[in-house]
Amino acid sequence: MTKVTYKSDIEIAQEASIEKISTICEQLQLEEEDWEPYGKYKAKLSLSLFDKLRTKKDGKVILVTSINPTPAGEGKSTVTVGLGQALNAIGEKAIVALREPSLGPSMGLKGGAAGGGYSQVIPMEDINLHFTGDIHAITTANNALAAFIDNHIHRGNELKIDPRKIVWKRVLDMNDRALRQVVVGLGGPLQGVPREDGFDITVASEVMAIFCLASDMNDLKRRLAAMVIGYTYDHEPVTVADLKVEGALTLLLKDALAPNLVQTLENTPAIIHGGPFANIAHGCNSIIATKLAAKLGDYVVTEAGFGADLGAEKFLNIKARYAQIKPSAVVIVATARALKMHGGAKKDELASENLVALKAGMANLQKHIETIQAFGLPLVVAVNHFVNDHEEEIDYILSWCQEQGVKAERAEVWLKGGAGGEALARTVLAITESEENHFAPLYTLDQSLEEKITIIAQKVYGASRVDFSPKALVQLKEFEHNGWGTLPVCMAKSQYSLSDDPTKLGRPTDFTITVRELKASVGAGFIVALTGNVMTMPGLPKHPAALQMDVTEDGKAKGLF
Amino acid sequence: MTKVTYKSDIEIAQEASIEKISTICEQLQLEEEDWEPYGKYKAKLSLSLFDKLRTKKDGKVILVTSINPTPAGEGKSTVTVGLGQALNAIGEKAIVALREPSLGPSMGLKGGAAGGGYSQVIPMEDINLHFTGDIHAITTANNALAAFIDNHIHRGNELKIDPRKIVWKRVLDMNDRALRQVVVGLGGPLQGVPREDGFDITVASEVMAIFCLASDMNDLKRRLAAMVIGYTYDHEPVTVADLKVEGALTLLLKDALAPNLVQTLENTPAIIHGGPFANIAHGCNSIIATKLAAKLGDYVVTEAGFGADLGAEKFLNIKARYAQIKPSAVVIVATARALKMHGGAKKDELASENLVALKAGMANLQKHIETIQAFGLPLVVAVNHFVNDHEEEIDYILSWCQEQGVKAERAEVWLKGGAGGEALARTVLAITESEENHFAPLYTLDQSLEEKITIIAQKVYGASRVDFSPKALVQLKEFEHNGWGTLPVCMAKSQYSLSDDPTKLGRPTDFTITVRELKASVGAGFIVALTGNVMTMPGLPKHPAALQMDVTEDGKAKGLF
Repeated sequence: MTKVTYKSDIEIAQEASIEKISTICEQLQLEEEDWEPYGKYKAKLSLSLFDKLRTKKDGKVILVTSINPTPAGEGKSTVTVGLGQALNAIGEKAIVALREPSLGPSMGLKGGAAGGGYSQVIPMEDINLHFTGDIHAITTANNALAAFIDNHIHRGNELKIDPRKIVWKRVLDMNDRALRQVVVGLGGPLQGVPREDGFDITVASEVMAIFCLASDMNDLKRRLAAMVIGYTYDHEPVTVADLKVEGALTLLLKDALAPNLVQTLENTPAIIHGGPFANIAHGCNSIIATKLAAKLGDYVVTEAGFGADLGAEKFLNIKARYAQIKPSAVVIVATARALKMHGGAKKDELASENLVALKAGMANLQKHIETIQAFGLPLVVAVNHFVNDHEEEIDYILSWCQEQGVKAERAEVWLKGGAGGEALARTVLAITESEENHFAPLYTLDQSLEEKITIIAQKVYGASRVDFSPKALVQLKEFEHNGWGTLPVCMAKSQYSLSDDPTKLGRPTDFTITVRELKASVGAGFIVALTGNVMTMPGLPKHPAALQMDVTEDGKAKGLF
Repeated sequence: MTKVTYKSDIEIAQEASIEKISTICEQLQLEEEDWEPYGKYKAKLSLSLFDKLRTKKDGKVILVTSINPTPAGEGKSTVTVGLGQALNAIGEKAIVALREPSLGPSMGLKGGAAGGGYSQVIPMEDINLHFTGDIHAITTANNALAAFIDNHIHRGNELKIDPRKIVWKRVLDMNDRALRQVVVGLGGPLQGVPREDGFDITVASEVMAIFCLASDMNDLKRRLAAMVIGYTYDHEPVTVADLKVEGALTLLLKDALAPNLVQTLENTPAIIHGGPFANIAHGCNSIIATKLAAKLGDYVVTEAGFGADLGAEKFLNIKARYAQIKPSAVVIVATARALKMHGGAKKDELASENLVALKAGMANLQKHIETIQAFGLPLVVAVNHFVNDHEEEIDYILSWCQEQGVKAERAEVWLKGGAGGEALARTVLAITESEENHFAPLYTLDQSLEEKITIIAQKVYGASRVDFSPKALVQLKEFEHNGWGTLPVCMAKSQYSLSDDPTKLGRPTDFTITVRELKASVGAGFIVALTGNVMTMPGLPKHPAALQMDVTEDGKAKGLF
C-alpha cells in the first residue's frame, strides 16, 4: 500500500487563493453602504439589507445535522461547507451559514469549527481567534451585567436581590476550570458583598443565545431586558429591566449584531455569526445570519450543533419557530468510522474493516432518520468519506439507506472540495423540489413544560419515560407560576448518546431520561431542562494545544490546527 | 449675562464631517498593502511600514503633559488633539498619537479619553467601546496565561509553583469591585486547586504594558516570555518561558499589535494604540504607534497619563529610553479652575473669580515646569480655556509664566478646534527650533533601584526623603538578587498630589514618600514601586453612566457622553 500524505487544514487554508471580501460582496451584488470591511477578507453586513431586500423571495434553507458524535468525528461543518461549494459548482447561488468558533477551546485541544481539508471557511486563523470581536462583545455585555448586579447590592440593594439566589454568572471565552466555582466580593465592606459565584465559557451565556435568536436590534433589547438574573428575598424574579441596563447591554452588542461575511476555500460566500452551546442553549448560528443568507442566496446551507437529537431538534423546535423558517431539506451526516463506534468498535480499531460493528451501528443513524421524518422534512444521508475508509463499508451504508427508502450520497468534500459533493448537491436540490414537506415543530407552545420535555424524550431520544427530580418538580410549578410555561424547551443532554448516559452508544432502548434541574432563559425564550451534568466551563488538557502555538517570522499563525 | 448653550461631545462627534479612512490613508501616502480597514472609519496600519520607511527621517515628538489632575479637569487629551489640528491648520504635517480608552470606566462615570468639544478623535463611539478589539485581545492573552498557570498546578505542578505565591492576576475590561479579591478553584479535585486570587482591570495588566513597550513582534514575544507569574516553593521566580506559552500569547496579540488609525474632527490623522495605567504601569500609548506616527508625519503630538510627575516622568525615564525617542518639546497643560483648586478653592466655588487661590495654586505648575527643565527639554505652558473662565485669571497665568521666563499660550481648542490652538502650535514649532534640548533621563540603569526611586521622589516630587517598608526592603534585596536591579522604576503614586497623600494639593514641601511594596514587571521591563494604595480594579458609582445608555431606532449610540 502506498503511503499518501495529506496537507494539514492550516496549510491548505494558508495556500488558498482567497478573494478580497469586496469581490465576494460584488458577487452578492452588494453596494458600498451594505457592508463594512474588517480587514481585507472579512466584512460585516448591514442590518439595513433586510429593509432593502424585503420584497425579494427568501432562498431555501438546508439544515445539516448528524448522527451522535463520537471521538471518531463526523465532519458536519466540513459537509456543510462542501455542500455549499458543490451547489455553487453546479450553478446554484448558495451561501453557507455557520456558527462562530469559540476561542477558548482552540487553546486546549486541536480542532475548530471552520470545516476541514478542501471544505473550509477562510481566513481560518482569524475565524478561530478573535474574528470580528463578536464573542468579546458578548463577554463584555455579560460581565457588565454581573458588575451592575453586584454594584446594585453593594450600593444598598433597593431591589432586595438575595445574593444567595443570583443565577447570573460571569463568563470568559477561555477553558478555565479554576473559575467554575469561586467566591467573589471578599476583602471587607469596600469590596462588595461576598457570595458564591462561578464563570461559564462565553458561548454558554444567555446573552449568546439571545444574540442568536433576536430578529433585530429592538428584539435584542427586549430579550435582554427580560433576562432573569436572580430572585429577591421573597423569591420574585429580578430582571435586567428592573436594573434598567438593557440599553447599555444593547449598546455593547450593537456592532456585533451585524452578521460576518467570509468565504470558503472555493470562494463561496459564508456568513458566520453567533455560536451558542448546543446543550444549555440551542446550538445554531444567529437567526439574523440565516435569514440574511436566505435573502442574499437561493440556498442557505446551515448546521446545528451536535447530533440531530440536540442540534436539529432545537433548530426545528426553537430557532425555526422564532424565525418562522421552514427548512426545505435536512442532510444527516454519518461516517463509517463513527457508525462502527456506535456498533461497538473501539477507537483504536477503527482503521480496520468491521462490517459487523457497522451493521450494529446503523441503528443510531436510523433513529435520527426517524426523528427528521417525524418533523415532516425531506432528508438525505451524506456519507462523509474519510481518506482511509473502506469501500465495502461505504457501499454498505449506501445500500442500507436504499433499502430503507432513504436517499443517501457519498460526500468526498474533505479531499475534493465542492467537486466531491456534487452528487449530494443534486440530490438535495431534487428532494427540495420533489418530496413532500410537512414541517411542523413536535410540540405546541400551549403544552405544559412537562409535556414538551416528555415529547422530546420519547419522540426524539426514544426514551420510555421521563423522571423529574424533586427540585425539578418544584421548579416546574414555579416556572409555570411565573408565566414561563409557554416557552419552548431547550434540552441539556449528553451529545454522545441518545440517552442521558454518554456511555450508551448506538440506539439505546427502554431507558429513562432524568431531568435534574430547570434553568429559565427567559430572555432567550426557552426553559433549559438539565439531564446529567452539563459542563458549562471546559478545562484544559495536560498538554494544551497552546504549547505548539506561535507566530512565524513573517507574522503567520502557527500551530493553530 | 446671556446664557450660551454648548453641544455635548457626542453631538459634535456625530455631526462631524468624517472622511473615509481610505482618504486619510491616501493623505498619508499609504498604499493598499500598508493598511487594513476596520469598518469605514478605522484602519490598522501594517508593521511592515517600518521596513518600507526605514530611510525616512523621523518626525519630531511633542509630549503633552499637565499639572496634577483635579476634579476640575485639565483637558490634556483635548489639547493634544487640538494642537495636532492646529499644526495641520498652519501647514505642518502632524499626527496625533493617543492611548486607547478602557471600556470599563465608560460604563461607570461620564467621560472618556477621546478629547472634547471641537478637539476630539472620531468615531468616538467606536473608540470608546470595542474599537478594533485590542484591549479584548489583551484581556484574552492575560486570562489564557492565568488558565495555563492553574492548569499546570492542577495537572501535577511540575514547576513546583507555590499557589500562595502566584502574582499573576486575571483581568476584565470592566469596573467590577466584587472581583478584587476572590477565591478560585473551589468545588473539589476536578475543579483545580483552591487559592486566593483577584481581578485587575485590563489596562493594569502587564500584558498591556508590554504591548506598549514592545518594539516589534519578536520583542513582544521576548517580553511576554520574561514575565514572572509567581514563585516556586523555593521562592525561585517562574516565568512564562517556563510554561512555554509565549508563542500562544503572541499569537493572541498578533493582529492587535498593528496600530489603529482614525482621525480628529478636522481630519487630522490620529493613531490610537495601547493604553496602560499610569500608576502601576507607564501610562503612554504604544512605542510602535509613536514611532510609526513619527515615520508618517513631521510632528507627532502625544500625551502621557495623569500629571507630569507620573506620566511625563515615565514617558521620559521609561518609554523614551526603551524607544530611543528624543522628544523635541513638552507642552504642560494647566487650567485656571484646576490651579485654583491647587490653591485651596473648593470644587463648588470654581465658577467664581478667585485670584488669591489662583496665585497660591501656581506652585503646582511651577514644580512641573522645573521637572521638565530637569530633563533638559524645551517647554511651553498651554492654558486650556474653559468656556466660563475669567479673562483676568487667564491673563494672570500668562503673565506669571512670562515673569518666570517660560513660554505660555492660551488654548481655545475645546471651543474652536485647531483654530483655537494656532498660537500654541507656532510657539511649539519655535521652541523645537530655537531652544536648546539637552534631553536625558534622570537616572542611569546601573544605579540601584533604591537610588532610582530616591531620585524620582526628590527631583520630580520634591520629597525630602523616601521611606521603605520592611517588606519593600526585603524585596529590594530579592529583586537585585534576581538580576532585576538594572531595570527602570515605575512609580505607583496618587495622581492628585505631588506627594503620596492625595489630599495634599498645590506644591507640598518637606514630605516623605513611603514605598510600601515593590512589584516586578520583568517582561514590561520595570520595577513598580507602590506608594499608598493603588486601585487596580475600579468600582461603579451608585448611578452608573450605563443607566443612560441606549441605541436609538436608527442604530446610533446614545448616552455615551
